[in-house]
Amino acid sequence: MTRKNALPVTRQEDFAAWYQAVIQEADLAEESGVRGCMIMRPWGFGIWERMQQLLDRKIKESGHENCYFPLFIPLSYFAKEAEHVEGFAKEMAVVTHHRLKMEDGALVVDPEAKLEEPLVVRPTSETVIGTAFSRWLQSWRDLPIMVNQWANVVRWEMRTRMFLRTSEFLWQEGHTAHETREQALDETLTILAMYRDFAQGPLAMPVIAGEKPENERFPGAVATYSIEAMMQDGKALQAGTSHYLGQNFAHAQNIRFQDREGQFQFAHTTSWGVSTRLVGGVIMTHGDDDGLRVPPQVAPHQIVIIPMLRETPEDAALLEYCDTIRKALVGAQAFGEPLRVLIDKKAGKAGPKRWGWVKKGAPLILEIGGRDAAGEQVTMLCRDALYGADDRLASQALGWQAFVDAAPGLLVEIEANLFSAAKARLDANVRSDVTDFDGLKAHFGASQYPGWVAVDWSRPTGDALDGVVERLKSLKLTIRNTPEQSSPSGETCFFTGEPAVERVLLARAY
Amino acid sequence: MTRKNALPVTRQEDFAAWYQAVIQEADLAEESGVRGCMIMRPWGFGIWERMQQLLDRKIKESGHENCYFPLFIPLSYFAKEAEHVEGFAKEMAVVTHHRLKMEDGALVVDPEAKLEEPLVVRPTSETVIGTAFSRWLQSWRDLPIMVNQWANVVRWEMRTRMFLRTSEFLWQEGHTAHETREQALDETLTILAMYRDFAQGPLAMPVIAGEKPENERFPGAVATYSIEAMMQDGKALQAGTSHYLGQNFAHAQNIRFQDREGQFQFAHTTSWGVSTRLVGGVIMTHGDDDGLRVPPQVAPHQIVIIPMLRETPEDAALLEYCDTIRKALVGAQAFGEPLRVLIDKKAGKAGPKRWGWVKKGAPLILEIGGRDAAGEQVTMLCRDALYGADDRLASQALGWQAFVDAAPGLLVEIEANLFSAAKARLDANVRSDVTDFDGLKAHFGASQYPGWVAVDWSRPTGDALDGVVERLKSLKLTIRNTPEQSSPSGETCFFTGEPAVERVLLARAY
Repeated sequence: MTRKNALPVTRQEDFAAWYQAVIQEADLAEESGVRGCMIMRPWGFGIWERMQQLLDRKIKESGHENCYFPLFIPLSYFAKEAEHVEGFAKEMAVVTHHRLKMEDGALVVDPEAKLEEPLVVRPTSETVIGTAFSRWLQSWRDLPIMVNQWANVVRWEMRTRMFLRTSEFLWQEGHTAHETREQALDETLTILAMYRDFAQGPLAMPVIAGEKPENERFPGAVATYSIEAMMQDGKALQAGTSHYLGQNFAHAQNIRFQDREGQFQFAHTTSWGVSTRLVGGVIMTHGDDDGLRVPPQVAPHQIVIIPMLRETPEDAALLEYCDTIRKALVGAQAFGEPLRVLIDKKAGKAGPKRWGWVKKGAPLILEIGGRDAAGEQVTMLCRDALYGADDRLASQALGWQAFVDAAPGLLVEIEANLFSAAKARLDANVRSDVTDFDGLKAHFGASQYPGWVAVDWSRPTGDALDGVVERLKSLKLTIRNTPEQSSPSGETCFFTGEPAVERVLLARAY
Repeated sequence: MTRKNALPVTRQEDFAAWYQAVIQEADLAEESGVRGCMIMRPWGFGIWERMQQLLDRKIKESGHENCYFPLFIPLSYFAKEAEHVEGFAKEMAVVTHHRLKMEDGALVVDPEAKLEEPLVVRPTSETVIGTAFSRWLQSWRDLPIMVNQWANVVRWEMRTRMFLRTSEFLWQEGHTAHETREQALDETLTILAMYRDFAQGPLAMPVIAGEKPENERFPGAVATYSIEAMMQDGKALQAGTSHYLGQNFAHAQNIRFQDREGQFQFAHTTSWGVSTRLVGGVIMTHGDDDGLRVPPQVAPHQIVIIPMLRETPEDAALLEYCDTIRKALVGAQAFGEPLRVLIDKKAGKAGPKRWGWVKKGAPLILEIGGRDAAGEQVTMLCRDALYGADDRLASQALGWQAFVDAAPGLLVEIEANLFSAAKARLDANVRSDVTDFDGLKAHFGASQYPGWVAVDWSRPTGDALDGVVERLKSLKLTIRNTPEQSSPSGETCFFTGEPAVERVLLARAY
């Protein structure tokens, strides 16, 4: 007997189509009709809101304060940092007018309302925040300056994919200024660790943290670090970045201070961010052929109760029974927070509603009918393990009080199960035994979802690096990062034959 | 002896200059260098974040779900609802290009990257959200649809004032669709009540809730309701609006459904919002000549502990003592939430730091020196009552455990004090005894801060209303709203001489 899954396409059949199907069937997001911009629907936005809440707490606990900077950045601000403008100038939305008017019955841009200086819709805020830092900073006593903002940014994209690459996206961007190089580097790595722990904790998404190669640096940065996650098709997703900007932006924007000896110094700055792309990462890490599985800490509802309503007078008693359970649950805690519980009272039959929540990936789903109520029971589905050995839905009946007692532990267990499955997949799919370029070609040609390859390298720069990048490009491969604390397993660079100094991860990537 | 206040200008001397001084001295916000856009600094943004948290909870509890819709709205979307486009077309930022390029060493807009259809930066989202509703809605079973988003919006403004009127501002916008007129009107008024309770609760800001006159309606609305607050200069601030849109947007955007009889019907929609303008309202409601006084529920830090550091080895013990107090405080609750407490460890002398927090308006300020620590005491200032009868700072010494026990109650008391002072001012400054236009002219000419005047009126419409509006405009007056449940005190309309049907509030306004 072949199991029939809830999605019209499986990961095996067509990963890209499967991804779109999850987004649609789980009501996560939809095309907006506005080029490159999506609408985040309640369940998809709710996951992002949970991510925000949890990460915001960590950002604040580590001494950063939230601010808000303007959406618009005057064109001239971009001209100051040469590499930065080079990196971003190609893909920005530009406001050139500030008024519309009616002309011959049609609404048009009023040519008389042309701005003297065009305004760029922020693709990132180093330039405008750096300008503020230059005003705020006088003395070493003002340092460090550590701010963060949650904001929308726009990068014009030709080919978009929901959550992964959209013209507008939501993110947080942290910006800090420090007295010394060491302090700024320490901040950069502290944030990298915060991102890693956030991904591996609440998102149950294993990642490799490390430094990006020179060619993948943020425009204007001295060093860029990332966390890289492996999607179920073996591709890499850059899930967060932390940049040490050196004194580059400080020079461009005059971020100076009087040091302890009374001399003027340029500050060392950092910036770092994660975005709604993380939602895409969660989908491609935890989704299965029945839809999404949301890690419990970021699930808008952790437990969904579906009363089997019959539009009869008995419904009232059933709802009351469900509400008793809900009340008991919200009085309990998991992960240090009260449980989040929904009774789905919407019109409709219980069966389709159950499958709706399976596709959305609520961690625990209860179906409660009159017989359950009479027997003081609940019928439970754990979304992380939907089917039993017999390939049938693994519904379990248990007493409602027993369920309430077990629920926090079950949620913790589900998170652990999701993480360990993803971790096992990551560990199993990083090959270290590819020794030459032909082997690389063979490996990435042989399998549908080939994963990553780790190789030793000599950390080439400039033209030598460009050559490596070009060769990899012919296989659609990119260098992801140099894992932290990695040392070469052999003596020779995979690419150059020179002495190896570290390991790098090669992969196809989103 | 004249008291010297912390601000360089008093409310009495120059209210507008005082307002700017509070914003600057309390580090709430600053000009960004980008026309019409401000930077919200941590203390100012923190107040908005607290507002968001509290209001978001209410919005969710009342059955709304958060979503996110695109920043950009195609020009053609605006053309659909005639009144709406009329109301907004004059002041919108328009994106016309999507790329920059270098030309002769200068960064310029790339003329080849002109968009086929210009994109408007959302001034509000009825058009784009209505278009989504038309996709989401098929049957009466899908109703109501109740969504909200927290977002930035842009309305091009010629004259801006921080928090009150800026080109970009932050807000929430709720949008709902309903089966019947009654349900939509009920939603409109439910939200109005939610805004009123929010203003009068956590913001301690008394407001009058009521319907706006026809000429002040949201473009495209059938009815607009507002909450109006009285600032300390007697001017009115529209602090939140709730609109019943009838079927106007439903017709324009084809928001239709099959009703219980299988017939197609247009939905009845609503929209409603509050913005960062509320921060301006809090400043002008509670600020005094020493700076801001933040109502405790929206204060980022409710209690600030200033250790009197001397850069000596004894500092460590003092900080430890402060931390003992902090730990005890954060274990306590006020308003159902843990207390928010900061130890201000920044470099600098205690005196200037104390005045810094007075200007910022932290509700409770503790100064703790070595002598306090030795005596297990704290020295406390309550920001709502800074000076004693002798015009000196009303510092009080008390045992630290006694302070910890008292703190939650003190915060509740401070909120009540702020509200009752503002309520008394509002009540004392609404005149009802002005009987004719000359009297109105005399009243508003006679005093610096003349407050509001309530008059009976016949609810004129069309040209008759326009005439009234014009006459009021000559006195720089506007009609604020018709207070809920108000009935006329006399029989004749103040303006038309016709039978009066309700009362309206007249005021100068922000």
